[in-house]
Amino acid sequence: MSHPVLINGKWMQSNATESFQPTNPTTGETIDEHYPVSDWNDCDAALTASAAAYTALRQLPQSKIADFLNRFADRIDERSDEICSVAHQETGLPITPRLAGVEMPRTSNQLRLAAKSISEASWQLPTIDTATGIRSIHSSLGPVAVFGPNNFPLAFGSVSGGDFAAAIAAGNPVIAKANSSHPGTTRLLAEEAQAAAEETGMPAGFVQMIYRTSHKDGERMVADARLAAVGYTGSRNAGLKLKNIADAHGKPIYLELSSINPVFILPGVVKQRGEEIATELCGSCLLGAGQFCTSPGLTVMLESPETQTFIDSLVGNVDAAANGILLSPAVQTSLQSAVAELVDAGADKKCGGGIADESGIRFRNTVLQIDGKSFLKNAHTFQTEAFGNASLVVVASDVDQAVEIASGLEGNLTGTIYSHADGDDDELYQKIEPELRQRVGRLLNDKMPTGVAVSPAMNHGGPFPATGHPGFTAVGMPDSIRRFSMLQCYDNVRSHRLPEHLQDENACKIMRRIDGKWTADAVTGKS
Amino acid sequence: MSHPVLINGKWMQSNATESFQPTNPTTGETIDEHYPVSDWNDCDAALTASAAAYTALRQLPQSKIADFLNRFADRIDERSDEICSVAHQETGLPITPRLAGVEMPRTSNQLRLAAKSISEASWQLPTIDTATGIRSIHSSLGPVAVFGPNNFPLAFGSVSGGDFAAAIAAGNPVIAKANSSHPGTTRLLAEEAQAAAEETGMPAGFVQMIYRTSHKDGERMVADARLAAVGYTGSRNAGLKLKNIADAHGKPIYLELSSINPVFILPGVVKQRGEEIATELCGSCLLGAGQFCTSPGLTVMLESPETQTFIDSLVGNVDAAANGILLSPAVQTSLQSAVAELVDAGADKKCGGGIADESGIRFRNTVLQIDGKSFLKNAHTFQTEAFGNASLVVVASDVDQAVEIASGLEGNLTGTIYSHADGDDDELYQKIEPELRQRVGRLLNDKMPTGVAVSPAMNHGGPFPATGHPGFTAVGMPDSIRRFSMLQCYDNVRSHRLPEHLQDENACKIMRRIDGKWTADAVTGKS
Repeated sequence: MSHPVLINGKWMQSNATESFQPTNPTTGETIDEHYPVSDWNDCDAALTASAAAYTALRQLPQSKIADFLNRFADRIDERSDEICSVAHQETGLPITPRLAGVEMPRTSNQLRLAAKSISEASWQLPTIDTATGIRSIHSSLGPVAVFGPNNFPLAFGSVSGGDFAAAIAAGNPVIAKANSSHPGTTRLLAEEAQAAAEETGMPAGFVQMIYRTSHKDGERMVADARLAAVGYTGSRNAGLKLKNIADAHGKPIYLELSSINPVFILPGVVKQRGEEIATELCGSCLLGAGQFCTSPGLTVMLESPETQTFIDSLVGNVDAAANGILLSPAVQTSLQSAVAELVDAGADKKCGGGIADESGIRFRNTVLQIDGKSFLKNAHTFQTEAFGNASLVVVASDVDQAVEIASGLEGNLTGTIYSHADGDDDELYQKIEPELRQRVGRLLNDKMPTGVAVSPAMNHGGPFPATGHPGFTAVGMPDSIRRFSMLQCYDNVRSHRLPEHLQDENACKIMRRIDGKWTADAVTGKS
Repeated sequence: MSHPVLINGKWMQSNATESFQPTNPTTGETIDEHYPVSDWNDCDAALTASAAAYTALRQLPQSKIADFLNRFADRIDERSDEICSVAHQETGLPITPRLAGVEMPRTSNQLRLAAKSISEASWQLPTIDTATGIRSIHSSLGPVAVFGPNNFPLAFGSVSGGDFAAAIAAGNPVIAKANSSHPGTTRLLAEEAQAAAEETGMPAGFVQMIYRTSHKDGERMVADARLAAVGYTGSRNAGLKLKNIADAHGKPIYLELSSINPVFILPGVVKQRGEEIATELCGSCLLGAGQFCTSPGLTVMLESPETQTFIDSLVGNVDAAANGILLSPAVQTSLQSAVAELVDAGADKKCGGGIADESGIRFRNTVLQIDGKSFLKNAHTFQTEAFGNASLVVVASDVDQAVEIASGLEGNLTGTIYSHADGDDDELYQKIEPELRQRVGRLLNDKMPTGVAVSPAMNHGGPFPATGHPGFTAVGMPDSIRRFSMLQCYDNVRSHRLPEHLQDENACKIMRRIDGKWTADAVTGKS
């Protein structure tokens, strides 16, 4: 019997005709749990319930949503052991340090920051123009579907992660589509979300969760008029299909699709501390078996004896490290095919390159190398994302070639430049930086890009095809919340009919832009 | 001989094989000026020049762009007589009060506000997180193509209007595509833009202007990798084609497509001051011959003797008013066909409905009426925009039907509710407002929507299909600027390499969010 789905506030049997079972990637064995593939009836019921929940939600004070987020955070912290244990079983990610030590605290912290952002209201950019009497504020948009990725079952999970927290904090109901590689983890998180919703008096259908649908039904849901927006993190192909549909319906869709996170290591710093950086790069490439959105998949260096020493050292480190567990057989398959594509195009296999001869779903830690001229001849192919523990090093023959490589890069989440501490690389930095800057959301110096701090200044975003819009971040409160909002303007609306945050009094003492100035003051005099 | 186009800082003969002539709508006669239909060579040259201009622009201090905007504003004010005279000839809009008295001052004011926004930098949302050392800021995106509409040759003009000012203020070069109905006006404005660019030392290709292209070349330009974003105001069909292409390339496109701007006039206020509101509605419907983006195309009322009196009065006023000049023969044709579509669907013609038997391009002032039940049966058709001096009144049989009409509305720029001054309509207001609120960018009380103040709190935007994204406004500094930007994050970047507005010192004393607080202070202590 398949697990029930969460629709309209109830755990109910799915209208499924099919079911699926996840794999334990540590053993390679199928897990003895059955999850339903929902048919359109489930989707339809969830959409109807979310529309009703949205109407109900708009009658509630925003502080209730903050209560929900805080209560949900507490609940998953309390159930952390069980959730992390199932997440480990389904993803192979280690319980410590990763799941229990880092990802769970990050997840509950993110929910609490979302709650705090509601009371501060700065994500709403409340704006008052006393000369014209016009006021505006970013407000909730409507039901949001969240499609979560495989690689962060908690912190980017469809019913617990950044998109979920942002969509909820903006005041929207969420329909979560579990990632098929960790349905059990998502089930436990959804149980806690529903329990927290009940405890805090949220409407039925505020949080809903289904495990899987056919592609056709998923696309039909995105097109449906009851759905207002979509958050998606996952593969580029599936994401672009959903984007096509959302775009055609003029519906905001926020995507995180793929990124190879180029790292430029300039000649001076290679001389200065190449050995140290080779160790850092190895660690970053293999963190989580390379299954980070910000894993460095492309390193660009200039030809020199020191670069050769660097690469030898990198390859030695990578080859000597244990081959990590991949998230699923599907990741293994696509990694194998991406590496094959790079090798077919001419990349030189320095180590790894094939499926590991060990138990569990693994791939041999892989370093590939290509010269700059060959890279430029086939730049699109050499930017193929090999999601997992494989990375490509490009050796440019000279400065001009390195700059040309930078200027031909696709949009990425991050771009990194390591340079000499005392300025020996500054001339080259100034040539590469302008090219790289325009092509990445986050620019780093002297630091690997793998970590994504939950910071108000973070941009976990970037130009297409890394995401669908270069102006938004998926991580970092409060600004990630504004993605799931609409701008609502009030012109000559009677004062008692205004939303609380636009009324003269400013009862909550939030920061507002009044006549161009940020202030927590009330509006006085004419309005 | 065709007029030259402005490419790469020079007025040069177009690579055109075709040319076109605008019409003087006041006389209906062709104007004896020839404008080129550019071929792909022009587009290609403009794209190359804009990419080079963008690189050069990023080396300049932002204050230079403010200098340009201010100088340009001064120049068009100085040449206002000539520009307004040509604009009148090409559009039929009156010089006074409209073009010289309202639209030109609005246009130069908008350019100056854009300049001011550059020095204040609040559109950039500079954000500093001292705990992590991460900093972020919205920055320029790259070359922007602006397609301007027919109805505001100056204030929304492709080389002078809101999208132009916003794209430039964000630090981007602009390729302006003139509207074919007023090429001469655009030429004069482009001359002043280019002269101002030269005077203030802007790079060649900073502002470029072509008059027309084939649809194919226009679409190819939007798809081209050298172009970063698009601003478009115009017809829904052409806009949606460009949106498809921009979306497929993951490129931001900001559209203003169509809007019927529903006005609900509740029963209490009809009793209280129906006659007065009928006069206001007539004035708003006929302002600029109804060719405002925010012209009220749909009025919803409840069946009653007072409503009948209101409609009689409205029809009397509208029928008695002079038939205004339409912007072009194309507007006349599409207005005629939209009115025919509404009538074919069952709307009752109360006055007007055909081409006016007078000189010039005109249509008879038109009021149509339909009952609520018929409207709901065919709600999509009855929301057809009849751009021009025609408006539809829907008479709902009861409150539920009025609410159902509100909840079936498409996305609009504005929605208006007139209600009784002393609260007699409040119960009904509370039913209609939530439905209307979610479907419009700007909600008004007791005031016609035609005016669009240039205010920091304005939202000239709204849900699809009014625009392409519900989170952005096309009017109002500084926030309209942020549309043409990308979010750029700096992680561990050495302090002297940060953009000026993210450096500790805060030399320009701008407002920044430091650790969640808006302040003009410098960063002190750890960074």
